[in-house]
Amino acid sequence: MRLKEAGMSKIRMNVSRKSGLPPGSLIHVGEVHDHEHRISVVNYNSSAVERYIVNSIKEIPPLKSADTVTWVIIDGLKNVSIIDEIGQHYNIHALVLEDILNTHQRPKYEEFDDYLYIVIKALSLKNHDFQVQYEQISLLVLDKIVFTFKEKPSEIFDPVLKRLDNGKSHMRGLGTDYLAYVIMDTVVDEYFGLQDTLDELIESVEDELMSYPSIQTLSSIQRIKRELIFIRRTVSPLRELLASIQRSESALLDEHNKRYFGDIYDHAIRVTEAMESYRDLIADMMDIYLSSISNKMSETMKVLTVFSSIFIPLTFIAGVYGMNFDYMPELKWKWGYPALWGVFIAIALFLLGYFKKKKWL
Amino acid sequence: MRLKEAGMSKIRMNVSRKSGLPPGSLIHVGEVHDHEHRISVVNYNSSAVERYIVNSIKEIPPLKSADTVTWVIIDGLKNVSIIDEIGQHYNIHALVLEDILNTHQRPKYEEFDDYLYIVIKALSLKNHDFQVQYEQISLLVLDKIVFTFKEKPSEIFDPVLKRLDNGKSHMRGLGTDYLAYVIMDTVVDEYFGLQDTLDELIESVEDELMSYPSIQTLSSIQRIKRELIFIRRTVSPLRELLASIQRSESALLDEHNKRYFGDIYDHAIRVTEAMESYRDLIADMMDIYLSSISNKMSETMKVLTVFSSIFIPLTFIAGVYGMNFDYMPELKWKWGYPALWGVFIAIALFLLGYFKKKKWL
Amino acid sequence: MRLKEAGMSKIRMNVSRKSGLPPGSLIHVGEVHDHEHRISVVNYNSSAVERYIVNSIKEIPPLKSADTVTWVIIDGLKNVSIIDEIGQHYNIHALVLEDILNTHQRPKYEEFDDYLYIVIKALSLKNHDFQVQYEQISLLVLDKIVFTFKEKPSEIFDPVLKRLDNGKSHMRGLGTDYLAYVIMDTVVDEYFGLQDTLDELIESVEDELMSYPSIQTLSSIQRIKRELIFIRRTVSPLRELLASIQRSESALLDEHNKRYFGDIYDHAIRVTEAMESYRDLIADMMDIYLSSISNKMSETMKVLTVFSSIFIPLTFIAGVYGMNFDYMPELKWKWGYPALWGVFIAIALFLLGYFKKKKWL
Amino acid sequence: MRLKEAGMSKIRMNVSRKSGLPPGSLIHVGEVHDHEHRISVVNYNSSAVERYIVNSIKEIPPLKSADTVTWVIIDGLKNVSIIDEIGQHYNIHALVLEDILNTHQRPKYEEFDDYLYIVIKALSLKNHDFQVQYEQISLLVLDKIVFTFKEKPSEIFDPVLKRLDNGKSHMRGLGTDYLAYVIMDTVVDEYFGLQDTLDELIESVEDELMSYPSIQTLSSIQRIKRELIFIRRTVSPLRELLASIQRSESALLDEHNKRYFGDIYDHAIRVTEAMESYRDLIADMMDIYLSSISNKMSETMKVLTVFSSIFIPLTFIAGVYGMNFDYMPELKWKWGYPALWGVFIAIALFLLGYFKKKKWL
Amino acid sequence: MRLKEAGMSKIRMNVSRKSGLPPGSLIHVGEVHDHEHRISVVNYNSSAVERYIVNSIKEIPPLKSADTVTWVIIDGLKNVSIIDEIGQHYNIHALVLEDILNTHQRPKYEEFDDYLYIVIKALSLKNHDFQVQYEQISLLVLDKIVFTFKEKPSEIFDPVLKRLDNGKSHMRGLGTDYLAYVIMDTVVDEYFGLQDTLDELIESVEDELMSYPSIQTLSSIQRIKRELIFIRRTVSPLRELLASIQRSESALLDEHNKRYFGDIYDHAIRVTEAMESYRDLIADMMDIYLSSISNKMSETMKVLTVFSSIFIPLTFIAGVYGMNFDYMPELKWKWGYPALWGVFIAIALFLLGYFKKKKWL
Repeated sequence: MRLKEAGMSKIRMNVSRKSGLPPGSLIHVGEVHDHEHRISVVNYNSSAVERYIVNSIKEIPPLKSADTVTWVIIDGLKNVSIIDEIGQHYNIHALVLEDILNTHQRPKYEEFDDYLYIVIKALSLKNHDFQVQYEQISLLVLDKIVFTFKEKPSEIFDPVLKRLDNGKSHMRGLGTDYLAYVIMDTVVDEYFGLQDTLDELIESVEDELMSYPSIQTLSSIQRIKRELIFIRRTVSPLRELLASIQRSESALLDEHNKRYFGDIYDHAIRVTEAMESYRDLIADMMDIYLSSISNKMSETMKVLTVFSSIFIPLTFIAGVYGMNFDYMPELKWKWGYPALWGVFIAIALFLLGYFKKKKWL
Repeated sequence: MRLKEAGMSKIRMNVSRKSGLPPGSLIHVGEVHDHEHRISVVNYNSSAVERYIVNSIKEIPPLKSADTVTWVIIDGLKNVSIIDEIGQHYNIHALVLEDILNTHQRPKYEEFDDYLYIVIKALSLKNHDFQVQYEQISLLVLDKIVFTFKEKPSEIFDPVLKRLDNGKSHMRGLGTDYLAYVIMDTVVDEYFGLQDTLDELIESVEDELMSYPSIQTLSSIQRIKRELIFIRRTVSPLRELLASIQRSESALLDEHNKRYFGDIYDHAIRVTEAMESYRDLIADMMDIYLSSISNKMSETMKVLTVFSSIFIPLTFIAGVYGMNFDYMPELKWKWGYPALWGVFIAIALFLLGYFKKKKWL
Repeated sequence: MRLKEAGMSKIRMNVSRKSGLPPGSLIHVGEVHDHEHRISVVNYNSSAVERYIVNSIKEIPPLKSADTVTWVIIDGLKNVSIIDEIGQHYNIHALVLEDILNTHQRPKYEEFDDYLYIVIKALSLKNHDFQVQYEQISLLVLDKIVFTFKEKPSEIFDPVLKRLDNGKSHMRGLGTDYLAYVIMDTVVDEYFGLQDTLDELIESVEDELMSYPSIQTLSSIQRIKRELIFIRRTVSPLRELLASIQRSESALLDEHNKRYFGDIYDHAIRVTEAMESYRDLIADMMDIYLSSISNKMSETMKVLTVFSSIFIPLTFIAGVYGMNFDYMPELKWKWGYPALWGVFIAIALFLLGYFKKKKWL
Repeated sequence: MRLKEAGMSKIRMNVSRKSGLPPGSLIHVGEVHDHEHRISVVNYNSSAVERYIVNSIKEIPPLKSADTVTWVIIDGLKNVSIIDEIGQHYNIHALVLEDILNTHQRPKYEEFDDYLYIVIKALSLKNHDFQVQYEQISLLVLDKIVFTFKEKPSEIFDPVLKRLDNGKSHMRGLGTDYLAYVIMDTVVDEYFGLQDTLDELIESVEDELMSYPSIQTLSSIQRIKRELIFIRRTVSPLRELLASIQRSESALLDEHNKRYFGDIYDHAIRVTEAMESYRDLIADMMDIYLSSISNKMSETMKVLTVFSSIFIPLTFIAGVYGMNFDYMPELKWKWGYPALWGVFIAIALFLLGYFKKKKWL
Repeated sequence: MRLKEAGMSKIRMNVSRKSGLPPGSLIHVGEVHDHEHRISVVNYNSSAVERYIVNSIKEIPPLKSADTVTWVIIDGLKNVSIIDEIGQHYNIHALVLEDILNTHQRPKYEEFDDYLYIVIKALSLKNHDFQVQYEQISLLVLDKIVFTFKEKPSEIFDPVLKRLDNGKSHMRGLGTDYLAYVIMDTVVDEYFGLQDTLDELIESVEDELMSYPSIQTLSSIQRIKRELIFIRRTVSPLRELLASIQRSESALLDEHNKRYFGDIYDHAIRVTEAMESYRDLIADMMDIYLSSISNKMSETMKVLTVFSSIFIPLTFIAGVYGMNFDYMPELKWKWGYPALWGVFIAIALFLLGYFKKKKWL
């Protein structure tokens, strides 16, 4: 079934797999991807950028200077031991590690003494069927190091890496909080792309609705409606998340950089509002669909009524003169038959005029 | 009646039985279960675990050492005297005792000087009919002892007991607040299992709705809708309850352990949001159901109109030539009859073409 | 008209009677009951209880000892002079006196230096027609005396009086605040009885809706819906009222006794939530009713279509062979007539099969 | 068009007339009334009341003693120069003067150092057509003087004047804040009269709806719905307005008199809640109207189906025996004709029984 | 497609163009207008006004005296370098510059140490098709200079310029905050003009709906509904924006001038409330439209039923006497034929009476 695939699966997929285990048990809960995990490390400061692929957290090279920022990108969550190692090495709370592995999290922000934990969702489209794919992206922001955890390899961070390669980028001189901002901004900017696709889809469904609405149109409307429910659930907690970051007094967040998070906040509000508008538009479509069914039925009814109302009386009259009574004077009249045709035509014209007046023709 | 059983009974069952009695009167209000009550006692510290079955509160063995935690599980609320004894022995407020016995409570958290009182609901499914069963679980959290009151014996706490048996579990070294957390987490985790079942049910109803919607489909939709009303009423107060615990400044709650309750808080939000999404999905189903009835009626109408509109004019013409006028020249024509068949066929084809153009065929 | 009686009257009844009068003018606004007013006085302390019927406020006997509480129950508001006397004797604000007499108040709580003013509504059922009756009960809580004003005599306070008669009741040793709690608790407990009746009514309407829904069913649904509007208006201010009492810092409220009001608060929330659930259930019923009309119409349409579509073509054929053309070879054939019956039956069977396939039969 | 007159005009009427002018430009925006303006002055203290009609603000007699309150009632806003004079004489902010002249204000309360500015709306009914008329009443409350600005002369303040004439009225001894309270109370009390009329109207529409709903009923429902939208917009800001007054710390408001505004606050809540209830009732009516159309259509359909389904098969049989086949043995049988009548009757009875069983008759 | 043009485009137009670029990248995002940019400069103080057209920010003449206010109006955002220059010269935050260029902003207010940043939207109508055009207007308010950025040249600021030319205008003696107020007030006042047009449009659609509702009416209703969604999104953030300005403690805002922003606040609330009312009115229209379809269908059904129910039985009787049985005694009767006409007429009259009684005629 198409309808279900689009969105249902997001709620359904083994949410209950972990129930019964002690809290803090590290086990990956979510869609299992067959990709190998990969650990990429980026070391940068205002003068240099270095990139490695490592196999273990232990291989991450020690910081060379105080102004160097390390960004560790972990693709794939199958290998629980990596998460475990990070947890032990950087003293991360067991519940945070558990949340990184469970990809059914809501976007959220949690503040600890030595690090910040941020969960957001990257949205992308699989194909032209408007099947939105959700990828959970977790950020651990420490003093000199940022960890990002992704469910599977993708190109979403390529623009960020390209900017780091650019020696003039002022990003290279800023701390981990600015890196976190850039990562989140990149993810949220993708939402606008989704919005464009959604716009086109809604437009094409509207065209269909205005020309020949069918049960398929209804199904498309429902599919969009459903997808919007899930997008909204993903996007709406962002407001609160970003408001919390802006209110935060953590030493890990530079006062000046916090204004940048305000920029993402504005974007989140705009996406949320657009989704609200779409919901209203979709609700209108449903109304139009229902009224178009009623309209068609009304049309059909008029045709039936016009045909029946004209021919049923005529048939009766024809029936009368088909009766076999011995004494029926009209039958003997010479002009009886042509006169009756006159009557037939007169009745038909009168009724046509009547229906015309009623605007049924 | 099936419909009612599913949910109505939760509101209806003797809510008014106690009215007129003085407040603090101990009487069990709720569904009376025929099970015998049972008092299980678990004593544990980091080095040892002991389990007993006792018949009276007085038999609970005194604490052996300062770091020992005692967990008393009372199954069955028929025997009011046990509650009364606990109240007197541990100096529990009369209204709390009354609330433990009245299983129509909303989930809530109350803070007293010497103890905390928590009410939550365990949800389980009786059978494949999606009849949710609600069991009220009350917790009294004291300094060294936790009481849990359940309406009837069940296996819901088995995973907790198993973990206590495990010598390495770090739970054994923590206090009553952590035990309370583990108990609540176990109960809330069950909600995700319910969510899975709900997912499957909604999916199967959707399949039905898309293929051959019937009055049974409507009834299923209504049943799910109704059950959701009750689940929401049970789940939604959890947010506030857990927020209160996190804000609490009670000495009984360790600052570090409070973060664990934040984890249950996240789960509660996720379940609540899933229920909201289900409600939206169910509302959509109702719309689809109504539009499918309209669609079918529209289809029926078209068939009727096509049949009637084609044959009624033809019948009229046949009626005309069945008339008995003496002078009807056409009747004498040699080719009159075959020519008329030509007219019949021409009219029928014309009308078929007309309806084809109107997309009614 | 039945519909109106149930609830409209609560909004309509002479709400405007007083407009134009100076504020503080004492005049009874509300349904005038023909009952004589009656002033009952109860004096109690931990050792004794005395009850009198007096004719005037002046007859209320002076307090015998410091720990005695006096409860004055005034049934009937026709005699404005009593209210006036109380106002002068106990220095009550003119607006409070005015509010006591105007029975269109919302439940509210007002705090003055020397007394508290509480308005609640007692709900009861007149008969099996689910006509809810609203009685306004005003409480004036002073240091050693409580006044309750009721619109007419009823047995609602009998359980409270019985408890006072019981020498062991710990209520006898507590102050006016506890008496106020007991009175309010008694009134709110009555709501659960109403809830039971509502449950039964909804259940019976549901049965009707599932078997043979009629215009009467619709009318019952509307009646319940309407009654719920008024009950909700009466019940929902209770939450705020009780929260205000709990937050209050009045010297008239003992800190320890305030927790009891928290208990009524819980009850008020439960009743409010139950009313919300009922509203959802009733909204569902309306949907089911509408879909059942559509369903029935769809059924009727199918019957019409099947009959018409089968017999109209057959009638046409019969009409053809009733024509009087001179040259109609089929009419001469020996087996023409039986063969035509074969054609009739074949067409009928074919169409029946077609409709069977369409699931219309 | 009737529909529009009732309410639309309130939004539409030249709201944009002033756009482009500098802020603080004094120009009357609103419905222009042809009435001459009139300035009435009332001077009162506990010992005496004097009333004058003056032509200019300058004619207002100077205060005779410290305890005298002056109330200036300005009827008609056409003469902008009066407002201008007041502004200059009493040092009123330009925006306040502008707001007094623009009768499209929402009810609001603004606090200045030397005066308070209050805008409320008087609602009245023009005739039995339920056309609500809105009159904006502005109050300027100074230390010893109150200005009220009305759009046109009316009797709305007559009861207040009558009370001032009464030497025993304790109002004469109180300040301008109490006068402001009395004026506002008088205006708000009028709302209850409107509520009574609304009650009667809704009742009569309900009667109509239950007996013979027509397109006129729908139109009435819509008209009430629309009027409610405007009344709600006028009434709902009152709550906030009165809460602001109660919270206010202005020296112009006596602490003791503030409680009186609490009384108007209660009235405002009651009116608002009644309007909410009406909205729910009206929404129900719309549902009943729609279901009554469906019901009628369903009824019509049944009649059509019963007639058609009974006579169409019979007509077919009659048609068969009207055929002209040479060999039709039944036609020769002596009892053929009466036997066929038997068949006709049997078929008709069978079908009638069938429809009876289906509850269509 | 008409429907889409009206509003969709506002959400859709290249919202995603910038995604992937570093934050603070200056690129114009929005509808590109082919107009040349133009920089107008107005220098004014209480004694003189000077106006220039300059080509570059560097050409802005230096301030002559401390009390001179400079207003720079930039029409057209194509030339990014101007924005860049302003940014560098006046030390404006990169994100603000980015926001000025991106015309998909929500109205907002941001406070910096040296300047205030305000975004609002000017609404205007392109033609009689009710196609609302949105123009983003950004304000940078510094100590002695105000920048306004507009998407394209228009006359919207002409009234402000005219007032500045007027030597008596007290605006010339006030600071940049008052200029900002006047600009915003001018923009918001335009909304009332839009409201007038909307009023007329709704009125004409209502007329259409009451006389002959068609699919075009539905389309108009939907178009207004949709436009309202976008207007509301543009207008509703104004409340918060203006509340922030009023709460602001920035040294750039004079305490006395802040009250003027309160005036715009009132206007914003009025517009928002009017839009809410329109939404309710439009929702009602949709209901009326749907009920009018049902009503028409019901009418059609009645006509069909009356015609069919009268003539079908008569046709049957005529069919009976057209049968060719050898023995049909009625056929021989002399008065058989006229008697049958009597029967025909009697049946017809009876049925007409029956339908009359049912109010179908």
